[in-house]
Amino acid sequence: MIVIRSAARMAAVARRLEREGKRIGFVPTMGALHEGHCSLIRAAAARHDMVIVSVFVNPLQFGPREDFARYPRPFGRDRRLARAAGADLLFAPPARELYPPGFQTAVEVGPLARRWEGSARPGHFRGVATVVAVLFELTRPTTVYVGQKDYQQALIVGQLIRDLRLPIRLRVQPTVREPGGLAMSSRNAYLSAAERRQALALFHALRAARARIRAGERRPGRIAALMRGLIRAKAGVRLEYAAAVDARTLEPPRRLRGRVALLGAVRVGRTRLIDNLLVGVP
Amino acid sequence: MIVIRSAARMAAVARRLEREGKRIGFVPTMGALHEGHCSLIRAAAARHDMVIVSVFVNPLQFGPREDFARYPRPFGRDRRLARAAGADLLFAPPARELYPPGFQTAVEVGPLARRWEGSARPGHFRGVATVVAVLFELTRPTTVYVGQKDYQQALIVGQLIRDLRLPIRLRVQPTVREPGGLAMSSRNAYLSAAERRQALALFHALRAARARIRAGERRPGRIAALMRGLIRAKAGVRLEYAAAVDARTLEPPRRLRGRVALLGAVRVGRTRLIDNLLVGVP
Repeated sequence: MIVIRSAARMAAVARRLEREGKRIGFVPTMGALHEGHCSLIRAAAARHDMVIVSVFVNPLQFGPREDFARYPRPFGRDRRLARAAGADLLFAPPARELYPPGFQTAVEVGPLARRWEGSARPGHFRGVATVVAVLFELTRPTTVYVGQKDYQQALIVGQLIRDLRLPIRLRVQPTVREPGGLAMSSRNAYLSAAERRQALALFHALRAARARIRAGERRPGRIAALMRGLIRAKAGVRLEYAAAVDARTLEPPRRLRGRVALLGAVRVGRTRLIDNLLVGVP
Repeated sequence: MIVIRSAARMAAVARRLEREGKRIGFVPTMGALHEGHCSLIRAAAARHDMVIVSVFVNPLQFGPREDFARYPRPFGRDRRLARAAGADLLFAPPARELYPPGFQTAVEVGPLARRWEGSARPGHFRGVATVVAVLFELTRPTTVYVGQKDYQQALIVGQLIRDLRLPIRLRVQPTVREPGGLAMSSRNAYLSAAERRQALALFHALRAARARIRAGERRPGRIAALMRGLIRAKAGVRLEYAAAVDARTLEPPRRLRGRVALLGAVRVGRTRLIDNLLVGVP
């Protein structure tokens, strides 16, 4: 596996691969790789001539009071995990390579980015869309792999690809969970053993909501209230939001039908966690 | 010359040309072609295997009180002029081809887009940057040709290309002027004979400012005041702005040095006109 730090070199390599007709699978990450990321890399390796993994803790997608500085950066470990999962090329640029002095362009996705994570983290998705546009141009992927855990982000990336006419296919892969059900996240590293148990309240609430929908409930307000109640009942967990929404628009419908996304965000201690489940409603 | 209306077909043709290693020159326009556009097309034809001209009156770059509805759309004439100037392909999509239902992505360029046209026309450059990003992806040009007349726009397009790492070269071609000096613009068609004479006040002010700089003046405030005075003295012409700025940042410097852009915008009757001159200051 080769490691590239320079944006110009990355672009040159990707263009050569493109000219050679190679199919490139791309897995954008912020590093601190876990089994969720590895499953994306393996999925890409199974279908592509070449797998590029990017490791870049994108300053643009962190708010001023967020965890940019303390976000884990275990580069040696990331390198080993990426290679073991089947990555051929690791693109790990320093920030000035992606955002050289004078950089001033932003990409923004409209209504999809407004609610939920977008309203909890102003500017977050603008940062995500911008870095993704730059990374796509530098890596020229055939297919990009993202995790369902960041469901709103996955929808936004898909919208950006469609709207900007990028010749890229998006594959959203299932969330990988710890044995107890906690969604894998690089931020789980922040959790103490006690917080790890508390954090499960979010997944349990999503699962209870799914069960209630499967049992026939169609009122999104009732489902949201159920999740909120379960999360609020758990000591040490602070609810940010919990909702049952249309899985394509992320808007709460009048009645649940078609594909529904159950979304939730909580804080456990200083750590912010999100999770979701998709439910097909007949 | 072939005419393409469908975005999908345009993308397919451009990708085929790219695979064949063809060098594509691209001239984005809003139609109502004049000699300024034709000079861009001829410049592109002289250097490229294939010249694509787009004709698209981009709704996103017009404000609610601007002239989107009355903007001239002489398509048959545009077609003849583009072909005569050397265009191989005319891309003239209806709006729904570029912005299908649900379209919600925007591209924005920062500080460069804030002053001058950006502050006079809120949202204008966001619309320009967005359509340009979409058009570039659909036409995959080697080189894009724009006119110096829209100088701020040219800088913004250049910044977008750099920041998003697009493999495109930008060529800014000299402003083409009527015999009297009026900068060619599709909006000149709105002017009566009297207004056409009044409109010259802007070019005359820019020229006087250039002469004053060449005679040794280095204070941007003095140059701006000279231009404003000349424009305000002309009956029937309303000044919007006139300034002497750094030609790269568009910010007014403390003293004029290096490459200086003289920028101006006026209204003559209902018509808004812009013009500029570049001056090298030793």
